Amino acid sequence: MPKLKLASRLEYIEPFRVMALLARAKELEAKGHDIIHMEIGEPDFPTPPDIVQAGIAALLQGKTVYTPALGIPELRAAIAHFYAHHYKVVVDPAQVVITPGASGALQLALSAILSPGDEVILSNPTYPCNRHFIHMFEGVPRLVEVGPAQRFQLTAALTREHWSSRTRAVMVASPANPTGTLIDPDELAQIGDWCLMHNAALLVDEIYQGLIYDQPDQTVLARQPNAFVINSFSKYFQMTGWRLGWLIAPLDAIPAIEKLAMNAFLSPSAPAQYAALAAFSDTTLALLESRRQCFRERRDFLLAMLTELGFDIPAQPQGAFYIYANASHLTDNAEQFAIRLLESANVAITPGLDFGGTAASQYLRFAYTTSIERMREAGARIKTFIKS
Amino acid sequence: MPKLKLASRLEYIEPFRVMALLARAKELEAKGHDIIHMEIGEPDFPTPPDIVQAGIAALLQGKTVYTPALGIPELRAAIAHFYAHHYKVVVDPAQVVITPGASGALQLALSAILSPGDEVILSNPTYPCNRHFIHMFEGVPRLVEVGPAQRFQLTAALTREHWSSRTRAVMVASPANPTGTLIDPDELAQIGDWCLMHNAALLVDEIYQGLIYDQPDQTVLARQPNAFVINSFSKYFQMTGWRLGWLIAPLDAIPAIEKLAMNAFLSPSAPAQYAALAAFSDTTLALLESRRQCFRERRDFLLAMLTELGFDIPAQPQGAFYIYANASHLTDNAEQFAIRLLESANVAITPGLDFGGTAASQYLRFAYTTSIERMREAGARIKTFIKS
Repeated sequence: MPKLKLASRLEYIEPFRVMALLARAKELEAKGHDIIHMEIGEPDFPTPPDIVQAGIAALLQGKTVYTPALGIPELRAAIAHFYAHHYKVVVDPAQVVITPGASGALQLALSAILSPGDEVILSNPTYPCNRHFIHMFEGVPRLVEVGPAQRFQLTAALTREHWSSRTRAVMVASPANPTGTLIDPDELAQIGDWCLMHNAALLVDEIYQGLIYDQPDQTVLARQPNAFVINSFSKYFQMTGWRLGWLIAPLDAIPAIEKLAMNAFLSPSAPAQYAALAAFSDTTLALLESRRQCFRERRDFLLAMLTELGFDIPAQPQGAFYIYANASHLTDNAEQFAIRLLESANVAITPGLDFGGTAASQYLRFAYTTSIERMREAGARIKTFIKS
Repeated sequence: MPKLKLASRLEYIEPFRVMALLARAKELEAKGHDIIHMEIGEPDFPTPPDIVQAGIAALLQGKTVYTPALGIPELRAAIAHFYAHHYKVVVDPAQVVITPGASGALQLALSAILSPGDEVILSNPTYPCNRHFIHMFEGVPRLVEVGPAQRFQLTAALTREHWSSRTRAVMVASPANPTGTLIDPDELAQIGDWCLMHNAALLVDEIYQGLIYDQPDQTVLARQPNAFVINSFSKYFQMTGWRLGWLIAPLDAIPAIEKLAMNAFLSPSAPAQYAALAAFSDTTLALLESRRQCFRERRDFLLAMLTELGFDIPAQPQGAFYIYANASHLTDNAEQFAIRLLESANVAITPGLDFGGTAASQYLRFAYTTSIERMREAGARIKTFIKS
């Protein structure tokens, strides 16, 4: 029987390597091994209790029916208010689109912008879904190599250099996954001006917004009100499994985005939306602030630990919950290092190859989504592993 | 300032007309009007209590984190078991993909199958999202006019007639929206054989499965085990706002679908998945059976009522919760009829133009997602409206 021919885009879309590693980690765990998880891009804190209670109340009240495609007006207004109050930035509630996770926001923004063959400039390394979503809508990711010299972020000069007549958008993430670095606000503003001048879109992934440790929290919207901003309740608000995010888009793009949203999703999860209304309460924000402090302590601890173990961290991670470490003093194949570390020391981390870039095979991503105590134990195990 | 150029696919993707009508209905409601809603494709029954309780338990137990991209193994197994028990059809749990609504299932299936320019044969009229999703992934919907003579369903002969060298898939919905008709199982099997012979995919939308009133419930998988089946917890299980569906796909397509799912969604909603585990309990299934009986009574009532009012229903609706009525004896513009009916009689229905087809401007879709009492009142209002 002939085999069904699958879509051409599948050639360009890769599975995450960390998934095979995660499956193996679970296998080992099932056999009784004590695995230390530093591979997972997910906070280890539970969803704040007020949000959970609001979710339960929604279920009890039968708020389990379709909502408007762009989300419930109360939540769109609450997010706009959060920008006004927290960032002193004016966002019209009509610009706020509630989505099934940041994934949904990325999908809406890219499917609204990209025609087949259109190019998007983005950094390499980057979060892999970004380039995969571009392929999904038949766009062409124009990957720009960045390294420690650029703190793994795009610059205005690099953007201009890689611009073509087909460039329709620039994508930036700040704080970034896997590096935890922030883009320089002046560079970002210059990139935004360039996009505006060339009738292209600036997309900024701010899903780690709030998880930033050395300076005040920020948003690109403060200087680039026309940017498309992708955000999420997953990371800072610790609602991963609820699948809820949002997109801020220029007002004149909203009718197109609404068309796409009603066709692609019908509506975001109703209980998740009602739960998220409790995300901006004073109690919840105070709890999240204490958790942010905890992440900061973990970053400081892990940074010192990895340096002492012989890893090189060429760009100070300032946000998210990742450290992107160069392992070339310890191995010439970081992926094999990760696999062997899991097998013999039961410490799970993510190979740099998931994120791309020419030096990816030298890099490893450590997530500090576990306690300092567990990270200390991981350090001891890694030390023994390196010596063996 | 130059306006951002949006994606070319937006020219082919339309908003639902009923949305404007729904917005107007809500406006009138806010002003104190008593609107009878027969436009909404959503059960008026709340989510069954056991499912709600399972959702609450999941929230209390912190089951609010990412799940595997294809869904939690327990739910994949429960769905496979449901097919075995209820339809006597063998489905490997590995074929079951849990998705964010049937929308997510449609998206995965089409993005896995369609390369740009690939054609999909589907009936006209059809649920509009179907053709829009095809455009989203740069495929070409090949709309085949069907009418009362075909009970608004594709036939094997029509499929062969519209086949081209670029045809990659055939899409069928049974029970169908907006007509409520079923496809003849022999025709469907012939279409499936033809697809198999031509190395193309058969996609069957079974999201109204279970809501069928004149004959035993069925699935295409009984005769076409290679079909892609789109299904949902929204309609029969009355979980619309939870946004949970599933896709059954041939085993050899699953790795591709998993790649797409992990990139497009990361994972379906965790609490919704744990809640859905209670969907197959005896208590819940008994409750759903009583609600199905209720839908059947409503269909019979509405069918008689509309016929008496002068509408023509040329194909007996056998499932879902819609009646597709020809209004040409009453008006020469069904959309205007719907708008005026809402304004002056406060009865909301959906214009056929949302679903396409050459005769669409003569048709109206009535949803029996409200009580017989309310439908009787709607009938009285429509009678007065027609006479005026």
